[in-house]
Amino acid sequence: MNSNHTSLGPKADKETVRRHNLSLVLRAVRDEGEATRAGVAARVGLTRAAVSSLVEQLLDSGFLSESGKTFSGQAGRPGTVLKVTRAGPAGIGVEINIDYVSVCVVDLSGTDRVRLTEHIDNRGALPAEVLARGARIAARTLESAAEQELLPVGVQLALPGLVSGGTVRQAPNLGWNRVPAEDLFAKALAELRPDLPLLPVSSENEANLAALAELWFGGLGPLRTFLYLTGEIGVGGALVLDGELLRGAHGFAGEIGHVVVDAEGPLCRCGSRGCLEQYAGQSALLRSAGIDENAGVPGVAELERRARRGDARAVAAVEQAGVMLGRVLSGAVNLFDPDAVVLGGIYRDLMPWLSPAADRELTARVVSGLWPRDSGRLRGSSSAGDAARGAAALVVRAVLADPVAYVQRTAH
Amino acid sequence: MNSNHTSLGPKADKETVRRHNLSLVLRAVRDEGEATRAGVAARVGLTRAAVSSLVEQLLDSGFLSESGKTFSGQAGRPGTVLKVTRAGPAGIGVEINIDYVSVCVVDLSGTDRVRLTEHIDNRGALPAEVLARGARIAARTLESAAEQELLPVGVQLALPGLVSGGTVRQAPNLGWNRVPAEDLFAKALAELRPDLPLLPVSSENEANLAALAELWFGGLGPLRTFLYLTGEIGVGGALVLDGELLRGAHGFAGEIGHVVVDAEGPLCRCGSRGCLEQYAGQSALLRSAGIDENAGVPGVAELERRARRGDARAVAAVEQAGVMLGRVLSGAVNLFDPDAVVLGGIYRDLMPWLSPAADRELTARVVSGLWPRDSGRLRGSSSAGDAARGAAALVVRAVLADPVAYVQRTAH
Repeated sequence: MNSNHTSLGPKADKETVRRHNLSLVLRAVRDEGEATRAGVAARVGLTRAAVSSLVEQLLDSGFLSESGKTFSGQAGRPGTVLKVTRAGPAGIGVEINIDYVSVCVVDLSGTDRVRLTEHIDNRGALPAEVLARGARIAARTLESAAEQELLPVGVQLALPGLVSGGTVRQAPNLGWNRVPAEDLFAKALAELRPDLPLLPVSSENEANLAALAELWFGGLGPLRTFLYLTGEIGVGGALVLDGELLRGAHGFAGEIGHVVVDAEGPLCRCGSRGCLEQYAGQSALLRSAGIDENAGVPGVAELERRARRGDARAVAAVEQAGVMLGRVLSGAVNLFDPDAVVLGGIYRDLMPWLSPAADRELTARVVSGLWPRDSGRLRGSSSAGDAARGAAALVVRAVLADPVAYVQRTAH
Repeated sequence: MNSNHTSLGPKADKETVRRHNLSLVLRAVRDEGEATRAGVAARVGLTRAAVSSLVEQLLDSGFLSESGKTFSGQAGRPGTVLKVTRAGPAGIGVEINIDYVSVCVVDLSGTDRVRLTEHIDNRGALPAEVLARGARIAARTLESAAEQELLPVGVQLALPGLVSGGTVRQAPNLGWNRVPAEDLFAKALAELRPDLPLLPVSSENEANLAALAELWFGGLGPLRTFLYLTGEIGVGGALVLDGELLRGAHGFAGEIGHVVVDAEGPLCRCGSRGCLEQYAGQSALLRSAGIDENAGVPGVAELERRARRGDARAVAAVEQAGVMLGRVLSGAVNLFDPDAVVLGGIYRDLMPWLSPAADRELTARVVSGLWPRDSGRLRGSSSAGDAARGAAALVVRAVLADPVAYVQRTAH
């Protein structure tokens, strides 16, 4: 959420420039937390007068609020402290995953204001039922949001599959094929809350949104280009290039779980053979450690416990998955040249055994010594971000990028 | 060279807007070939008066020229025909490859105006010698350019290796390590032509520049996101995302030749094992067809001849390389989700045998039916673009993006 560069497109007229500058000022205040008009002017490089006029519009539209006076001794408005409003536009993120639904509401500052998670198995139910379930949970968070005077401006769905144009093309672990997820969710929500104006609904792959959350709220520091992998029942992936998701030509980029490890290997749900998922997915890991491959979250906890106490089979299973991850990652690093590779999902807690094996492969196979041993470029994900928070923050980011577009909606 | 979107960065003031609009008008005339002020105004969405003022500045600075009158019956300047000047700023592209040097001079319209290629083996010579050789060849083209009243504003080097920050980190087939190529070239050129103002020298991986040439001058049509592979002694690669090179965090993206095919395979020059280059590089191809692997260009021509007349061993060698290419490409497509994969270099003439085998692997291994059989998304490169032309056009592109920055240089 730190992009200071927004394209103005081909035609740069006065109105476009003003909208651009409104966004610039709003983001400057958001980044500072608290700011004065003079501070904003210094930061963005516009005149004090221009900033005052832009701030006035942002105050009137409810994006900023001001409070108290500064200690500078100057009287009146120019010396007051500006903040992004706590009681204003908000984003709703709805992660619908295999065995849980998690909804969060994030305000303009990026703070997680409401969170509701229900552990519930979504396999076996029809897509429309699962999405209606998501809408019910989201509707509950809307009540909490209203009590906090937050004004949701949009919903972003995070879904475990190939998502494009509002549709889930395929989500193998849910058994979904060509599901119009946005429409189904929007209809369900409108039926539950006919009193509310219709909220625009967007959708995105959950690994992509988890990667954005890692970027915005995780511990990556200045790193802006990275590969993100999430180990779950499937192995999801995302590529972030200079702070932006790389979606590819059709929105399906990042499917690292289906990169071939062994062309003659076991059949994969995707129809190919020997995909990474068959060697480093949750089921493969549990199976090779001698644990029931359908044991889910408790099974992964058991695997970690066994590895921690030195159980040879458990350690070998995780290390072997690390070798396979490292091989596939070395190819991905040669292709994409990221600053870092971040491992999330079940991999995060298995890093002590996974990471050395994967790092060794990377060092051996990335070209030209570009991956020195123990460089720290392979790391576990942070716990500060998840797909639901990334989803909600993505909605907020759109507001920050062009607040004018949201004035009418929030005025309702 | 069709990017209509240029970021204005954080602060959009009057001067920035004017520079942006000058670029917009110049590119509009370049795209049209011939244009009137009214036509440009309609195309870019600025007022006629604004366009006239911008055109005046571009005429005065020598970026545009005008000729004759239109048949519209309107008298005077506003009705005359505008073109980008033929006798103005130009870019110089210098491709230094394993066994040839090719230099070309491209004018503002993208036309190849001077071309000088020398077939010469660059292996065995010191890097400084090879770069001085490139500078000598470039100096010859400068004479031809001067006769055509072209004013070169910069040199772009195309080099077969990992290039970043003016330095070749590694070019294994030339035996180069950490060679300050830009400095060495610039010094050599300055010694040859002390009478000329110093030309800025940039450098880039040759596969990257060949990919840009394919984008700008090839037959990709509306496709803007693709993977480009070039089969040579090494296997080079480039990723183009929405019309822009994807360079990665350090400028080394696209090294598809060193993606692992078989973790236990033969040692590669890069230090890893079983890289794609060991299965689909020129030497491997020739060897497995029973041709001397050091036979170079004539060897590849012989391979094609044999395949064409149905020699079983030659056909099998190319098909097997196609299978290996297809496996690695399927992983790259799963990761990057391109519109197309373009095969250049020696692969172009081997497509009849290479392509079906590679396409079969792609169909089997790309997720979710995203690579239908015979989709035409795997294609040979066109002959219209090469790395030298891409390099020269990249220099010109910088002029088109901000002509004001080049006014003083071209005024000399």
